Amino acid sequence: MTPSLTRSLLTERHRPTLERATSALRDRGHWSAYSESPRDYDQAAGAAAFAALRGTRFELDQPGADGWVGDEVSPYGFPLGIRYPHQNADVLVPAMRAALPAWRDAGPELRALVCVEILARLGERTAELAHAVMHTTGQGYPMALQAGGPHALDRGLEAVATALAEQSRHPARTEWTKPRGRHEPLRLASTFTPVPRGVALLVGCRTFPTWNGYPGLFASLATGNPVLVKPHPRAVLPLALTVATARQVLAEAGFDPQLVSLAAERDDEYAARTLATRDEVRIVDYTGSSAFGDWLEENARQARVFTEKSGVNTVLLDSTDDYRGLLANLAFSLSLYSGQMCTTPQNLLIPRAGIGTDEGPKGFDEVVADLAAAVDKLLGDDRRAAGLLGAVAEPGVLSRLAAAAETGEVALASREFAHPEHPDGRVVTPLLVRLDARTPGVERTLLAEWFGPVGFAVAVDSTADALVLLRRTLRERGALTVLGHTTAAPVEEALVGVCLDERAQLSLNLTGGTYVNQTAAFADYHGTGGNPAGNAALVDGAFVASRFHWAQTRRSV
Amino acid sequence: MTPSLTRSLLTERHRPTLERATSALRDRGHWSAYSESPRDYDQAAGAAAFAALRGTRFELDQPGADGWVGDEVSPYGFPLGIRYPHQNADVLVPAMRAALPAWRDAGPELRALVCVEILARLGERTAELAHAVMHTTGQGYPMALQAGGPHALDRGLEAVATALAEQSRHPARTEWTKPRGRHEPLRLASTFTPVPRGVALLVGCRTFPTWNGYPGLFASLATGNPVLVKPHPRAVLPLALTVATARQVLAEAGFDPQLVSLAAERDDEYAARTLATRDEVRIVDYTGSSAFGDWLEENARQARVFTEKSGVNTVLLDSTDDYRGLLANLAFSLSLYSGQMCTTPQNLLIPRAGIGTDEGPKGFDEVVADLAAAVDKLLGDDRRAAGLLGAVAEPGVLSRLAAAAETGEVALASREFAHPEHPDGRVVTPLLVRLDARTPGVERTLLAEWFGPVGFAVAVDSTADALVLLRRTLRERGALTVLGHTTAAPVEEALVGVCLDERAQLSLNLTGGTYVNQTAAFADYHGTGGNPAGNAALVDGAFVASRFHWAQTRRSV
Repeated sequence: MTPSLTRSLLTERHRPTLERATSALRDRGHWSAYSESPRDYDQAAGAAAFAALRGTRFELDQPGADGWVGDEVSPYGFPLGIRYPHQNADVLVPAMRAALPAWRDAGPELRALVCVEILARLGERTAELAHAVMHTTGQGYPMALQAGGPHALDRGLEAVATALAEQSRHPARTEWTKPRGRHEPLRLASTFTPVPRGVALLVGCRTFPTWNGYPGLFASLATGNPVLVKPHPRAVLPLALTVATARQVLAEAGFDPQLVSLAAERDDEYAARTLATRDEVRIVDYTGSSAFGDWLEENARQARVFTEKSGVNTVLLDSTDDYRGLLANLAFSLSLYSGQMCTTPQNLLIPRAGIGTDEGPKGFDEVVADLAAAVDKLLGDDRRAAGLLGAVAEPGVLSRLAAAAETGEVALASREFAHPEHPDGRVVTPLLVRLDARTPGVERTLLAEWFGPVGFAVAVDSTADALVLLRRTLRERGALTVLGHTTAAPVEEALVGVCLDERAQLSLNLTGGTYVNQTAAFADYHGTGGNPAGNAALVDGAFVASRFHWAQTRRSV
Repeated sequence: MTPSLTRSLLTERHRPTLERATSALRDRGHWSAYSESPRDYDQAAGAAAFAALRGTRFELDQPGADGWVGDEVSPYGFPLGIRYPHQNADVLVPAMRAALPAWRDAGPELRALVCVEILARLGERTAELAHAVMHTTGQGYPMALQAGGPHALDRGLEAVATALAEQSRHPARTEWTKPRGRHEPLRLASTFTPVPRGVALLVGCRTFPTWNGYPGLFASLATGNPVLVKPHPRAVLPLALTVATARQVLAEAGFDPQLVSLAAERDDEYAARTLATRDEVRIVDYTGSSAFGDWLEENARQARVFTEKSGVNTVLLDSTDDYRGLLANLAFSLSLYSGQMCTTPQNLLIPRAGIGTDEGPKGFDEVVADLAAAVDKLLGDDRRAAGLLGAVAEPGVLSRLAAAAETGEVALASREFAHPEHPDGRVVTPLLVRLDARTPGVERTLLAEWFGPVGFAVAVDSTADALVLLRRTLRERGALTVLGHTTAAPVEEALVGVCLDERAQLSLNLTGGTYVNQTAAFADYHGTGGNPAGNAALVDGAFVASRFHWAQTRRSV
């Protein structure tokens, strides 16, 4: 049967996108193939599509199906009621492995084109995906749309373009001629084939199932590896839609749809443990807690394991020439999605003597009070606040909030209220607690991750002391982000030095519409892979290059 | 103090080499920056330099020196008598770590230039290095010169050029502008710095200390990592000369010479175990037995471990249009350096019905007899044979030869004789043993590595059965090389398929002056990193990309 998605059709449709993406990788300027404007998507149609999925069985026609699982509950307060097929991995994974050779033999270019078609089809389902993300993660709709849709697609496309570049480092066929003086030269002809490692396992996370999942998924798929997607049991739908879309495109392009499969699990199954240690599984991508990330690194020895784990993000305040901008920017960063981001700042280090600003010196107390006021102002209107904060995904956030309030003097209490549009959804505003770096034992608080809307305003003796604490935090716990505010060149230099030494990503003096929580595909790396918060960076060469090997065939000419 | 090796001097001297190397990486045609002709090197001066080192202390001025070690014995029958400093690693390794920031801050381009200067200085010492390699490994002088000198330098330069390319994927500074409709665009300026993982440990091997050592050494150094060189206790001198040369160049360029240091060990010290698991050590490069390679992969969890381990190399004979060429080529491959190469063929799979040739069909017995005769002819003259075979490095080779002769019917006995020029050196010719794949338990023999001049001529029922045995061998034991001879397109296709499936490097129909044992830098990959013979390939992107991380600093503009 001739596939309906032919190579020439895919080439015509997506070759320009791939070329643009490849050049964006090289210059790292702003670029996106997918609109991030909510107005470009039909929210009502997305809502209808989502509503139609509720209470149904999500059919995938995967081999080895042996039951139905799924009990997702929207953080906005209702059960999704969607049942997903549960698989016998002993049937499914070998079937995926059997699909590998034909996908390998398709070559890097066709694989990349198929991947871009998958991304394009996902792009057509953006509003539907946005609802799926919203009602599994608790993000507000605009954020679920942007981060769960176009920004996730950007990261996926970045992975595809990086994979194609890695597999196109040199021609697939070469001739080699070695002169030998008066003798005939030696002549060899070689073919070089990128060969995948094996089955890749994606272990999805609850809070950003697509954004954190697409880089590994598409990096593995574009380098020839079948991908088994094991979503978080509370955030299955966004990845189930992704898998279904990928399977459809693969089939239309003439490939075995088992190349992208879903492993939904029972609540108590801990399927990632058994899947990640299967012999066929040679790649694992994981986002989540350090405890399980460490376990994977330790135990999935047959696989190359890419992790993004917990960290402790620091903000260092030294001085600013835009005090109001600093406050507004930081208030937003602390509030966005109730701090349920691996990139949200936690420890705000402020010299007890205060900081220099364009409004004159500001004492520690004043900075803390002004920041609390800025958060209050940002979140004063419940409806607007709810859109920014979203709903609380996990009860752990609430218990951490309560515990954090006991660690010091509360500068800004967290406020909980019912979501104006979804009265069963719980919304919480950030908590700001004053701590003193001199307090004995305070490190126990500062060197732990308090995932959620928890900020510690920490009085330190000096900026120099702040740098020492930052270095210790990075070394012992790692971080996805560091934010610094300073107008002093020596302080900036020292801050850069600490971040280089401890391999952390640094943002400086953000006062406008760019937030430390956010990175842009093609331009910014997410994480470095070089500190305890994870061993992978999205999307660098190392993230992609070790997903395949070069097999060379050489022969005498 | 102004360094004598300035950036501008290094740029003038080596920038063209780096550019040529980078383009060679891309087109993978023949290229070398270093002459491989022994006539271009002064053998007598090399011998004199080597003689002057014998019986002396090899001074390196490294911190933490606490004694002298070394009892190398030339396989040609005399002790070297050279004593190397022994180090207290608790002093040396922190000193190396302390040298990292300045080397990191030098940036990729200057680091690459310094590395090429080191390679150029090593090139000037080629004849001396050749003697050092000859009298530690037992290689004949021409091979010690070529493989130990220019070919090793080629691999080092390949690693440097790959590292520079990886670190130059995008500009070090970028501007990012995101349009926002009627609002002011968002503007960010970023700097991107490649930051090294930490101290790299090179665990050297006995048989190719420079060839197998330089890729990891230079890949690590060029990406900013200090390198601790732990040579095999019987092959210290080639790497000690390398370290001394690197330290000299680093000092002249104004860098801390501790960036490249030597860890010579006592005979019973097993220093690699304790060094490889130190917290400062974040990269390990290893060539040697699977047992210790597996141990490193299992235990050096704080490091990225690159291994080349044991494997079982197969030759599959199906048909040929150049029977004489096949025999001569294979006889040479079996003989070179008495088979003490990780790339030497071991299992020769031959259909019991024989093979088709340009001289008509040849039965199994005839092929084996003709191959034995070809080896005999190649090695008929002791002086010429000794030059090709070299001397036996390890007693294990002799015991394996004796044991292998008991596994089946000897088709060609190994001959041992005193080296004509070095009467205390032991030379051995290849053993060829007939086995039958049908014999119960023969897998125990065929699936073990018999490092040394041991070839098994294995009768198989058919080419199809040979492919099955090849696949099993690759899957269970891995291989650095596979050689096939066939004129039948379907057989070739099947052979290529098996090698792609099992991720092995394949050479086809080699009948001239190219041998399966040999690969050329810039053109050929050595290993794939994808089968049990090792997790690394020399030199692909994965070998280099994961030696550093990207640290980004971004700020509002």
